[in-house]
Amino acid sequence: MSAALLDALRNAVGAAHVLTEGDLSAWERDWRRRWHGKALAVVRPGSTAEVAAVVRACAAHAASIVPQGGNTGMVGGGVPDATGTQVLLALARMNRIRGVDRANMTLTAEAGCVLQSVQQAADDAGLLFPLSLAAEGSCTIGGNLATNAGGTQVLRYGNARSLCLGLEVVTAAGEVWNGLSGLRKDNTGYDLRDLFIGSEGTLGVITAATLTLHPRPAATMTALAACTTLDDCVALLGQAQQRLGPGLTGFEAMNAFSLALVARHMPQLRQPLAAAPWTVLLELSDDEGESHARARFEALLADALDSGTIGDASVAESIAQSHSMWHLREAIPLAQAEEGLNIKHDISLPVSSIPAFCAATGAALERAIAGVRLVNFGHLGDGNLHYNVQAPAGIAADAFLREREPEVNAIVYDAVHAHGGSISAEHGIGALKRDELVHYKDATALALMRAIKSALDPHGVMNPGRVL
Amino acid sequence: MSAALLDALRNAVGAAHVLTEGDLSAWERDWRRRWHGKALAVVRPGSTAEVAAVVRACAAHAASIVPQGGNTGMVGGGVPDATGTQVLLALARMNRIRGVDRANMTLTAEAGCVLQSVQQAADDAGLLFPLSLAAEGSCTIGGNLATNAGGTQVLRYGNARSLCLGLEVVTAAGEVWNGLSGLRKDNTGYDLRDLFIGSEGTLGVITAATLTLHPRPAATMTALAACTTLDDCVALLGQAQQRLGPGLTGFEAMNAFSLALVARHMPQLRQPLAAAPWTVLLELSDDEGESHARARFEALLADALDSGTIGDASVAESIAQSHSMWHLREAIPLAQAEEGLNIKHDISLPVSSIPAFCAATGAALERAIAGVRLVNFGHLGDGNLHYNVQAPAGIAADAFLREREPEVNAIVYDAVHAHGGSISAEHGIGALKRDELVHYKDATALALMRAIKSALDPHGVMNPGRVL
Repeated sequence: MSAALLDALRNAVGAAHVLTEGDLSAWERDWRRRWHGKALAVVRPGSTAEVAAVVRACAAHAASIVPQGGNTGMVGGGVPDATGTQVLLALARMNRIRGVDRANMTLTAEAGCVLQSVQQAADDAGLLFPLSLAAEGSCTIGGNLATNAGGTQVLRYGNARSLCLGLEVVTAAGEVWNGLSGLRKDNTGYDLRDLFIGSEGTLGVITAATLTLHPRPAATMTALAACTTLDDCVALLGQAQQRLGPGLTGFEAMNAFSLALVARHMPQLRQPLAAAPWTVLLELSDDEGESHARARFEALLADALDSGTIGDASVAESIAQSHSMWHLREAIPLAQAEEGLNIKHDISLPVSSIPAFCAATGAALERAIAGVRLVNFGHLGDGNLHYNVQAPAGIAADAFLREREPEVNAIVYDAVHAHGGSISAEHGIGALKRDELVHYKDATALALMRAIKSALDPHGVMNPGRVL
Repeated sequence: MSAALLDALRNAVGAAHVLTEGDLSAWERDWRRRWHGKALAVVRPGSTAEVAAVVRACAAHAASIVPQGGNTGMVGGGVPDATGTQVLLALARMNRIRGVDRANMTLTAEAGCVLQSVQQAADDAGLLFPLSLAAEGSCTIGGNLATNAGGTQVLRYGNARSLCLGLEVVTAAGEVWNGLSGLRKDNTGYDLRDLFIGSEGTLGVITAATLTLHPRPAATMTALAACTTLDDCVALLGQAQQRLGPGLTGFEAMNAFSLALVARHMPQLRQPLAAAPWTVLLELSDDEGESHARARFEALLADALDSGTIGDASVAESIAQSHSMWHLREAIPLAQAEEGLNIKHDISLPVSSIPAFCAATGAALERAIAGVRLVNFGHLGDGNLHYNVQAPAGIAADAFLREREPEVNAIVYDAVHAHGGSISAEHGIGALKRDELVHYKDATALALMRAIKSALDPHGVMNPGRVL
């Protein structure tokens, strides 16, 4: 049967694009090396029609399909399982920008376009595609949409979902839905677009998207501020939102241990402020220019100093300084990797609940594991923390991860749940959090999700074992 | 059977809230008097548990349910059919604001809250709930979400969908999904929220929602500008977006005939600019204050005058003048009603396609109906036109509507479709546009919609005959 399927796949995309031999680990293994599967074949279609033909061939042979973009996911959603029966559908060859409509401020891109090339195409048209995240040099827009990616600009521009007006999708039956649309308003029936966005390849294959572009701000400026407590960070967020409105495009918080790790492992990075319990990075995007932006920032921070919300602050003097402030924030994941593996959580909470959540969860972890260290940082403006639990000093990191992960996860996720939060803010469910999803998700919501999955993919062809 | 159902309904909500006698036309007839049905009963639940009990009772007796908010819809989606068998589920008693979270900038409201009371609750907390539309004094937030309402602030803040973080829904099986969430990021499975939003009561009953609030701008200012062509209007939009960024919160276009009708039927309304082929209303929401807003507006409009994009402009000198500029725009629907019934279209297009669409469609209509007059106005910034076709002067309006509507609709909708547009921008499908939906919607999308409807409402209890 698999020989017949392979023939059908070769017919669909050409023999050169059906890979079965040699080292396929670039597709079969995720970049963090947590999952290493075995595909029946890696299939690389070059067009939407070829994707549809691949899906029909797989459906006819009852083979399941794992779509993959840049293979930069965090939750094992885009690599095959170990059975050697799944078809890995690699979208990388579908990497055309189909068009840019400046007056409508939209861009249509194929799923395999690397995020950075989408950003570049927008920039070439004098506009901004604001989705921005660490993997932007290799992740693809199809994967960004399939996982509803977040990143650093969500506070102002929203997740990937908010930046998409329309999709082209190959359904589980191998039909093409042409839902590419440059419309900002369209109330003709159910919102299929948002159903496929974030479904992690379990309902169909996103092959192209029409994306919203924004005006480029005249100036973007960054500042750091030191806070004594998380309550102060939340108060600063409120002050910044009130004063800067939609100009506030970034609000990242970093606890003292996060920046201590950066200092230890990347001593060459200058830290403008003295160590404080919390350091906040603020970004202001201004429509008038640099001096206007600086004046607004300085007025905000002077007020915040006066009111005691912050203890110190530093506004970047140049674009280079802005970049190095962002670099501090972006260095945290690398610095913690140098320190040794830790137990990672990508969680979100109502902003108002974050201080209480952190107090309760930090205390519960300390009770369970004396001396435990928290790499707690993230997109505070969106209520999204990367709440990572590091072994106590002197305890081997890999043993800690191996032995304590279930216990730590239970403490963290129980607290997230109790505070009205989410166990996956921006990384998705994939293979990693399926069991937790069943445990923490509203039962009625799960039943609705299963009904939708059965309705749109009755034979379970699309990315089985992920999400549900 | 209906006696047993009525007993079950009385058990569910109390006999006082099951109305079967007397004049029920407030619920049975839409406000435009296009549909007048007959309900088995009008049922007025006071809580989510009562809604669930009503749905279970109806499901057990195979009776269908028509949810209704403020009964302000435009497409017959919220009134019962003529069979006398449908249960009219009136949400008006569920009108509590359940809570406001200032730090998280969210508000949780029950479905029956009138939009204006939601706006007021946000304002009382020093924040803004920006959804704003003509019916805001009587429409409800549940209906706004069920129809994904639009309005005048979509350019900056999005549709109702963009202003909602979470829902509470009673499913077609009478289960309660507690999806109320104050989270800006939550990637734990399929986007059920956006599936219910805009589904017009055909998949379940929205009983409450958590809404996003925004900072109140420091000043809001309005200007009028005169353009010779629609191309100039689109160019002005681009200039305004580039200069004002997210400060541009309104961009409405009105053709000469629209404002001529206002002048004829409401001569007391002052029109600051001389008649022009197109008049644009711009709104700027500024985070710094009135003088800053005025300076930005004046700089934009001076440039637009210099470049010839506009021929004349007027910036409001006061809040009262801003209101009267908006009043001109809002008077158009009333003025056209005074002129006599016309054939209305709520359409959207890519902004870049609007000039070509209007040229082609205007010419096609003139060929079919010499002397036809167009009341063409709307939310140009969103690509949304209220493209209304008025009888030639001297032809009776009601006869024109009766005799020419199918022909006119075909001309307009064919052109919309050919230009990549939507036949329903913000009003939905309801009972009015079901046939057109089948004609114009992508066949694969329709099949997906039907599969979802069957999966979530297998017995067809929820608002049958609407949308699908």
